[in-house]
Amino acid sequence: MEKICAISTPAGVGGIAVLRLSGEGVKEFVEKFLVRQSDSRKVSLRARMATFCTLSDGEDLIDEVVATYFQAPHSYTGEDVVEISCHGSLYVQQRLLQLFIDNGARLAEPGEFTMRAFLNGRMDLSQAEAVADLIDSRSESAHRLAISQMRGGYAKELETLRQQLIDTAALLELELDFSDEDIEFVSRDRVSSMIADLKTRVTRLIESFQTGNAIKRGIPVAIVGRPNVGKSTLLNALLGEERAIVSDIPGTTRDTIEETIEIEGFTFRFIDTAGLRRSDDAIEMMGVERSKEAVKRANIVLYVVDGDDCDVEIEDVTNILNADTQSLIVVRNKVDSRPTTAQHGINISHPQNLNVAMLSAKTGIGLSELKKKMVDSVREHIDEQGDVLLTNARHYESLCRVLSALVEVQKGLETALTPDLVVIDLRDALYHLGTITGNVSSEEVLGSIFSRFCIGK
Amino acid sequence: MEKICAISTPAGVGGIAVLRLSGEGVKEFVEKFLVRQSDSRKVSLRARMATFCTLSDGEDLIDEVVATYFQAPHSYTGEDVVEISCHGSLYVQQRLLQLFIDNGARLAEPGEFTMRAFLNGRMDLSQAEAVADLIDSRSESAHRLAISQMRGGYAKELETLRQQLIDTAALLELELDFSDEDIEFVSRDRVSSMIADLKTRVTRLIESFQTGNAIKRGIPVAIVGRPNVGKSTLLNALLGEERAIVSDIPGTTRDTIEETIEIEGFTFRFIDTAGLRRSDDAIEMMGVERSKEAVKRANIVLYVVDGDDCDVEIEDVTNILNADTQSLIVVRNKVDSRPTTAQHGINISHPQNLNVAMLSAKTGIGLSELKKKMVDSVREHIDEQGDVLLTNARHYESLCRVLSALVEVQKGLETALTPDLVVIDLRDALYHLGTITGNVSSEEVLGSIFSRFCIGK
Repeated sequence: MEKICAISTPAGVGGIAVLRLSGEGVKEFVEKFLVRQSDSRKVSLRARMATFCTLSDGEDLIDEVVATYFQAPHSYTGEDVVEISCHGSLYVQQRLLQLFIDNGARLAEPGEFTMRAFLNGRMDLSQAEAVADLIDSRSESAHRLAISQMRGGYAKELETLRQQLIDTAALLELELDFSDEDIEFVSRDRVSSMIADLKTRVTRLIESFQTGNAIKRGIPVAIVGRPNVGKSTLLNALLGEERAIVSDIPGTTRDTIEETIEIEGFTFRFIDTAGLRRSDDAIEMMGVERSKEAVKRANIVLYVVDGDDCDVEIEDVTNILNADTQSLIVVRNKVDSRPTTAQHGINISHPQNLNVAMLSAKTGIGLSELKKKMVDSVREHIDEQGDVLLTNARHYESLCRVLSALVEVQKGLETALTPDLVVIDLRDALYHLGTITGNVSSEEVLGSIFSRFCIGK
Repeated sequence: MEKICAISTPAGVGGIAVLRLSGEGVKEFVEKFLVRQSDSRKVSLRARMATFCTLSDGEDLIDEVVATYFQAPHSYTGEDVVEISCHGSLYVQQRLLQLFIDNGARLAEPGEFTMRAFLNGRMDLSQAEAVADLIDSRSESAHRLAISQMRGGYAKELETLRQQLIDTAALLELELDFSDEDIEFVSRDRVSSMIADLKTRVTRLIESFQTGNAIKRGIPVAIVGRPNVGKSTLLNALLGEERAIVSDIPGTTRDTIEETIEIEGFTFRFIDTAGLRRSDDAIEMMGVERSKEAVKRANIVLYVVDGDDCDVEIEDVTNILNADTQSLIVVRNKVDSRPTTAQHGINISHPQNLNVAMLSAKTGIGLSELKKKMVDSVREHIDEQGDVLLTNARHYESLCRVLSALVEVQKGLETALTPDLVVIDLRDALYHLGTITGNVSSEEVLGSIFSRFCIGK
């Protein structure tokens, strides 16, 4: 493939920067510009050897660099790759790029190195996408999901699904081949049970998306409750203590939404907080449409109750919650202003097994217990959903299509549709599954996937 | 020395990031965390070999990385160095740093790798400082100066000076040894001429500072002239055309002062432009104190004259200009509104050899000729000042002290001071010269020099 080049390190000034080239003949291409320090002779790059030398464009010495050659197929892209570690000045970075472009390399598109890795069979599409997730990951949990996907844990699960689909289709097609003879080779029951099993597995993956996606983007938390129960104080208490940790990571500051905190490796994102804050002015909390919306979009709902105000309409919240994917934590605030005995228990008329946290948002009493409850509720959902969590919206969409196709297959089997028609739906399921791993892929899809990468990866 | 570590690539998210460790035993230190991909066995790093492996903290796999070991003394710092190329996510970068710090490495101070390179004799102090200049350089000319200094062009010039000083001191000290015998071994004339030669060379270097520093920081240009002659239009015309080039370089945007343009590899910086713009309101240009200040601080003064207004007070400007280090270009603006014949020549009563540019700032006629004149005037100063330009304010200060010491030496020789007193001044000159290259250095000085580096270099 044609030679591409890009700066692979973050944009800006630093001690060093790395320029990466990939494509046929990049070794010889780069060597033209390299001169050995010791004796001013031409440099011959050896595979995987870091070579210190000067890089010049013939007239001018541009920089002292370390060049490393990775020989195809033992490279990131599977092609010949040269990585040049240069001084991290903007001028040097720009000048080197320009030099290579002027001499026939092309500036790489975002994600093009990883796309080549995919096209050259170094990874499947879901692994390639995980590379972008890994680079974007900001928390331990998001990182863990991405690295597990990159290393193929998820790809293995999909491959199992694919193999089952192929086996089922093969059984049905066998019947198809002999359809003239009017013999039913396959027990329809056996196919039905295979399809049912597939449906369960696909459904589990689809359901894991809410948790997986939340971990990747930050777990949405809604703080709701009547006016003046201390919702803002609670948010500030949560943020105030953890803010410093977030801003310890260099470069995050500009991207950090104010209402994000990290607890034990999970990022919690407070959704529509402005709206919730404004709901303080409303008389009835649940009358505020925005709060309802926030509850619907949350994985965790913190329902704040004043110490005094124990007769709450928990039902209004539980009614719109999906117990399988959403958690409710009742926060009994202002415990500092209550007598100690009253702190144990919450006097409400509902019999549900409520998860209650005692808190004084003002003094911070109970704050760490509340955080623990939040983390526990995330862990619970993760445990329920097994090893592999779906994190990618594109995959989610494809799996939903796989599921609909499977539903059609099942209908076909129940209504004794002819095998050829059932197979069409099965093939449809296979097709959509293939779009995830890249067994089936169009240029358009690849383009949209890799465009969200950063340049140089 | 103790193990230090830092992210050496620019802060932020990117395709890859590089973490650098230096110090005794870093190879074994890093190997503890590395596992081979193919067979999950421990990794043994070989000098200069890029090794693809996984990095984990025992429990968790943190990333797939490429680790390269540089064995002492063949490394940047002169110590054992390991460079780890990881995915450029903030989380991975932070996690790896934390891992190494938790296990006994220390976060490197800014410039600490380069300071170690200096302390281990890999480069002298002026070369080490050039590394920081190189990283900061934004233009071709600043880059050229920095790389020449880093590669020792300037160090060689200083070494010659130092050798001459030592020789002279030795001659005088020889005389000193035999001072009881009242014999004058050395011809005072010979010493005098050696000192005179040294003074010339040091003076040349000191004078090159205005040019060298200007190239490094951007060549200061003052646009002055009477109200309504078109100063702002000229500035806009200059900026408008070149702005795009500057912003092509990623990451510069936030640091780019609006009034900076790059022409043929030189950065021109328009000083105190706001003040100059305001001077449009004043009746007499030269009456405005700010404009005078701008002229004093400029390397190039663009004195704008309206096509109509040819009877100008050039003298007011030339009187405060230093012809050796500053250039005056008279810009005759609004040539578009004059008859063509009047464009050739400027009707002023002063006989000086004025450098005149004909221009229509509005239409852009003559703009490229004006730029050429600006570049020519910089090149002229560079040519006058020879190969080595002084760019560093600290060096400038030291050289000024060397010069004062030499003046004292000369005085001593003229007043027939005893050799022992003359030698004291000579030693003083040597001392100050030594502070530049680091032959003489204090921890305090080193601290202040390396603190201006970025982390990881």
